[in-house]
Amino acid sequence: MTPPVLSDLLAAQRRIAPFVTETPLLRCDALDAATGARVFVKAENLQRFGAFKARGAANALALLSPQERAKGVVAFSSGNHAAAVAGQAKAMGVSAIIVMPSDAPQAKIANTQAMGAEIVLYDRVREDREAIARDLAAEAGRSVVPPFDHPHVIAGQGTAGLEIAEQLGRRGLKADAALVCTSGGGLVAGIALALKAAAPRCQVWGVEPEGHDDFARSLQARERVANPSGVRSICDALMAEKIGVLPFAVAQDLGIMAVAVRDQDVREAMRFAFRHLRLVLEPGGAAALAALLAGKMDVKGQVVAVTASGGNVDEALFAEILTGG
Amino acid sequence: MTPPVLSDLLAAQRRIAPFVTETPLLRCDALDAATGARVFVKAENLQRFGAFKARGAANALALLSPQERAKGVVAFSSGNHAAAVAGQAKAMGVSAIIVMPSDAPQAKIANTQAMGAEIVLYDRVREDREAIARDLAAEAGRSVVPPFDHPHVIAGQGTAGLEIAEQLGRRGLKADAALVCTSGGGLVAGIALALKAAAPRCQVWGVEPEGHDDFARSLQARERVANPSGVRSICDALMAEKIGVLPFAVAQDLGIMAVAVRDQDVREAMRFAFRHLRLVLEPGGAAALAALLAGKMDVKGQVVAVTASGGNVDEALFAEILTGG
Repeated sequence: MTPPVLSDLLAAQRRIAPFVTETPLLRCDALDAATGARVFVKAENLQRFGAFKARGAANALALLSPQERAKGVVAFSSGNHAAAVAGQAKAMGVSAIIVMPSDAPQAKIANTQAMGAEIVLYDRVREDREAIARDLAAEAGRSVVPPFDHPHVIAGQGTAGLEIAEQLGRRGLKADAALVCTSGGGLVAGIALALKAAAPRCQVWGVEPEGHDDFARSLQARERVANPSGVRSICDALMAEKIGVLPFAVAQDLGIMAVAVRDQDVREAMRFAFRHLRLVLEPGGAAALAALLAGKMDVKGQVVAVTASGGNVDEALFAEILTGG
Repeated sequence: MTPPVLSDLLAAQRRIAPFVTETPLLRCDALDAATGARVFVKAENLQRFGAFKARGAANALALLSPQERAKGVVAFSSGNHAAAVAGQAKAMGVSAIIVMPSDAPQAKIANTQAMGAEIVLYDRVREDREAIARDLAAEAGRSVVPPFDHPHVIAGQGTAGLEIAEQLGRRGLKADAALVCTSGGGLVAGIALALKAAAPRCQVWGVEPEGHDDFARSLQARERVANPSGVRSICDALMAEKIGVLPFAVAQDLGIMAVAVRDQDVREAMRFAFRHLRLVLEPGGAAALAALLAGKMDVKGQVVAVTASGGNVDEALFAEILTGG
């Protein structure tokens, strides 16, 4: 398999239009004042099922053959990909089994169940989710919908980048920089493909949690390296073991950069989004905003696009973050 | 003064375009499933300064004469109108004094201060805010920007209704019903003027807190009656003493109806918006959604527009509502 190219993203955009929302690109005075930049927030927390994952899932499912769709699909996911595959499978009349870690946020498990998918829980530390999914797939001839390392998935996520370019274009602007929440790398690769086509000099940053900075270390090592197991992060959505093969190829080809944020930065970004954007962001969905607000890169005077990539967070955690330090 | 008409709303829309956001009209599967209707949420919490009030304030300020603008303005408000007048005055280079109740949410006082306005706090129970504002206005020749009872303000708020009609129209739909958070009545009157023009049979409901149901009682009595003083509600934004003269005239003319919600309904609607829409709503901004979710009217099979009119709420209250019963 090879990474998608711009024409694949444009085809994906037409293909998935009935199944996704064109999410708004928001700005606010407080964000511009805090950064000295012109900042635009791509509110993918307002996407169907509460995260950008609806895009890649729709594209991957729509590109299955009729025979494959009749046999159904399997997906493994920490949460947002799970709900997205379950939801899009339901919309397309496809049977879905979802393999989720037993410690996923209740909001994400409930979202997935609400879509009518069959859920198989596994132990994140002791079991190999990919092996479980492959076994389930082999049993019944189901297709696996991978969370990031597939050209159809990357092309689907990249439609968020096409929308950013279009929405900025309607304001007469181009992105100088883009900050993208990053785990397996499907979103950052897709957005880089879209934005570099519209603005070749745009600097694209993948933002990952401290202790899960496999992307930064992989770029430095010029080969994919894994995260150590067992490191905790508040960003449950950004805990892939390592960046995908295809996203890494795109990242090297397009010169994507990496930066890491602390849990504390993420908490502050969630509070900022609550107060100034009136958006509910989950920790992993606030990582890019956290990098910006923590001043991790110099963007003064620039047009900056930031992904708010998801908003599925349990009430208790959100309340604790709002009222905590 | 007479109420505005459709052409005033259309003129306001052009006039205030540089000063407001076209907010998204959102839908979600869970809301349609819960109601049996096709529900669209007008997310005015994503409006500048966090509430629809940015619209009326911009229109009123833009229609002042150059001499009036040079002398500055005064506004009295429980919070969202305060921040909106302060923010739009700053954007247009007009000096503003804002009269706010001392028990207004900290988020709203802070928003207003951040806009550089001078703030005068008063005691909601013991002092008459309109008299304070009039005195301040008389001293320095400042113009009062009233919160709802003015044709320019109503026309500005009505631009939210124009957008709803346009956004539904792009989906090939017209509103069968609209639910609008209501206090002084500027928003419900403006939205009714816009929606009844696009769909004359559209039923428009003003939603107010129980114990503050002056609008319902006024419609029944065929004259404006006041709320008893001292009744508490979680909806700090919906505590006007009574509906305005002009909004009441529009309501009688267009057959607007009224319904009341309990604090408990509002809390549940805020939790629903958090979980399923990933939006931060303040209590007053969730009243219309609360009426819908509590089944206050039969909307099965209908196209329903619901205003989510504001999102300025203190962290502690939001956390308590998320985790409370």
